[in-house]
Amino acid sequence: MIQPFQIASGPRVRFGRGEAAFVGEEAGALGMARPMLLTDPGLIAAGVLAPIMEGFQKAGMDFRFFEQAEPNPSDESILRAKEFYETNGCLGMVAVGGGSSIDTAKAMGALLANGGKISDFYGADKVAKRVPAFITVPTTAGTGSELTRASIITDIEWGTKASIHSDALYADLAVVDSSLLATLPRYFAAGALMDALTHAIESIGSKRSTPWTEAMCMQAVALIGRHARRFVDDPANPDSADPLALAAALAGASFTNTGLGIVHGLTHPVYSFFGGHHGTTNGILLASVMRFNLPAMREKYAQMAPHLADPSGKSGPGPGDPGTAEAAIEGVRAIARDIGIPPSLGAIGVKEEYLDRMAADAAKSATVQTNPVHADEADMKAIYTELLE
Amino acid sequence: MIQPFQIASGPRVRFGRGEAAFVGEEAGALGMARPMLLTDPGLIAAGVLAPIMEGFQKAGMDFRFFEQAEPNPSDESILRAKEFYETNGCLGMVAVGGGSSIDTAKAMGALLANGGKISDFYGADKVAKRVPAFITVPTTAGTGSELTRASIITDIEWGTKASIHSDALYADLAVVDSSLLATLPRYFAAGALMDALTHAIESIGSKRSTPWTEAMCMQAVALIGRHARRFVDDPANPDSADPLALAAALAGASFTNTGLGIVHGLTHPVYSFFGGHHGTTNGILLASVMRFNLPAMREKYAQMAPHLADPSGKSGPGPGDPGTAEAAIEGVRAIARDIGIPPSLGAIGVKEEYLDRMAADAAKSATVQTNPVHADEADMKAIYTELLE
Repeated sequence: MIQPFQIASGPRVRFGRGEAAFVGEEAGALGMARPMLLTDPGLIAAGVLAPIMEGFQKAGMDFRFFEQAEPNPSDESILRAKEFYETNGCLGMVAVGGGSSIDTAKAMGALLANGGKISDFYGADKVAKRVPAFITVPTTAGTGSELTRASIITDIEWGTKASIHSDALYADLAVVDSSLLATLPRYFAAGALMDALTHAIESIGSKRSTPWTEAMCMQAVALIGRHARRFVDDPANPDSADPLALAAALAGASFTNTGLGIVHGLTHPVYSFFGGHHGTTNGILLASVMRFNLPAMREKYAQMAPHLADPSGKSGPGPGDPGTAEAAIEGVRAIARDIGIPPSLGAIGVKEEYLDRMAADAAKSATVQTNPVHADEADMKAIYTELLE
Repeated sequence: MIQPFQIASGPRVRFGRGEAAFVGEEAGALGMARPMLLTDPGLIAAGVLAPIMEGFQKAGMDFRFFEQAEPNPSDESILRAKEFYETNGCLGMVAVGGGSSIDTAKAMGALLANGGKISDFYGADKVAKRVPAFITVPTTAGTGSELTRASIITDIEWGTKASIHSDALYADLAVVDSSLLATLPRYFAAGALMDALTHAIESIGSKRSTPWTEAMCMQAVALIGRHARRFVDDPANPDSADPLALAAALAGASFTNTGLGIVHGLTHPVYSFFGGHHGTTNGILLASVMRFNLPAMREKYAQMAPHLADPSGKSGPGPGDPGTAEAAIEGVRAIARDIGIPPSLGAIGVKEEYLDRMAADAAKSATVQTNPVHADEADMKAIYTELLE
């Protein structure tokens, strides 16, 4: 018997090299008028938005640029975005970026459609009315936010990360075009892909995992395992950028239905106390959390082991090695090392004296409920400590 | 590089034993009032609808029964359904059945939302406005129609099958509850599952196949390969009915995005000339078409071969045999034989003197365009002829 589950009706997906050129046309088809184009600072200067802007021009669509989406957006920054939307008489949201601009748009959209204040929506299923017409365009192969129902926010007053989860936040359309990844700096390419890999592996391990989402995540793991190293070396190459963009999307489309595990629970306190790049921190933690979860995950890890072997056979387990659960963990460790993920939490500035408070926060994370093995405060502290140096 | 593709925003899915009890509540949540409950003749008498009717009662929702959905619904039967909907002041459609009642609802919904006549919608993307609020509940693990954008119709005047393909036909919600399969007669259980297996294998082989849909279809093939024989023996057992119900849904969610292959092109003329059960005819044809497509499919068939091995090792290739492309074909042949699919087209009444006309029709099928190997009229005739006795 299969445990009952639900798969949300997520965004339509348009995937492929050059598809970003159709965003303007699609915005028109969705009934947008003068949409707000939210993006992360620097992306315009880097030329990433050029094909999108040309597409808008070709479609004869006007739009308004908002380039101040914050990384890990604060509630205040979301209010500024909302004011911009209203002042400019925008109708429709196009979010282009990593998680930040997309999460900003989701939270802003919840406010626009429902009124109230952002903290009204914290938690699950608290957003009654759908956000305005909404297109997402990821520029990293990482968060999967283009396909999820989650918006992760930094609440300034509470001094912590908060999240909104609601089907009302789904975009109408996600345009996934790996040519937008071409100029990703190595460090961010590596962190983003470890984020996507973490999503895929944690969704498979989730207590709410389903055979439907598992199939998609195994494909994501396979695409990442095969192409991670080459992608980080040359994100402009379609032969590795396409698989990575697709893997991140598949993982997003899956974990939005299943929830995640304690890698995410452990990463958020690291950010609260020390900042740092979300995906990179996931990348530091992932193999150690897999070892912690091993008792419940032997079979699934063994299944993913061949996908996580180094295709060149030079680093870690190779494609011919036996597909054991341990080989999957070693495969993840080898990928992280080869693409330049820092080897420890200490290397990104985490200090021992904060571990107790971080572990207490991590143990309160909602991800504990879906993690395959129960983790308490002492377990969290042990994982942090093991990775300190 | 990955060829550009799109994944539609299909219906929300609610999967699991007992979920049919929530159809009434969900109908209310979708804003339905006095919905039309379309079903195939005999299903009410068989008690299949009892949990759904109880759910409606519990939710305090009124509804109107329409039990005259035709197998392979004619355009005339769809007009009768539409008249029923309007006369009874229905608002919303709940289709419970195999493909017939669901396809009837889709075509009726296109008429209700857009006016005009049914033949206006034949072909792809000709339905402008979405159908009314719509829930699908499959009672066979076969057509996947609960999750597709297709409605297959028998056009009386044209004397042929016609189809409507449009995103406007997607249901809002598909409720997949394998307890509704419990009383499926062996013959229909077998035919339906061969239909689902054909969808999965033809979607993987489609020229529009994607790594996204392929992952879902490989899972469908695995679930069917492992559970087909036990399901046909005892469709009331959740341990095999759940995997089969899920496999049919996964295959539907995939092929709606990729199209199919010439098994379907060959099956439709068999129906036009001789009638018979759609899935059963697919089951007779599938292995032979796989052999025809082998030159383009060696790698994918080899990948699916372990999934198609007989778990007991008694019949055809066993789980330990090498995963060759030929083993996949033999695996399909063994499943068809073991679950009682007739061995030949002759066994279901097909006569040699019709093969030329059938082959001419098959060669005109749209499925030729997505089939991995080009097939002309002579190829179609050769496949029919090989399977005549």
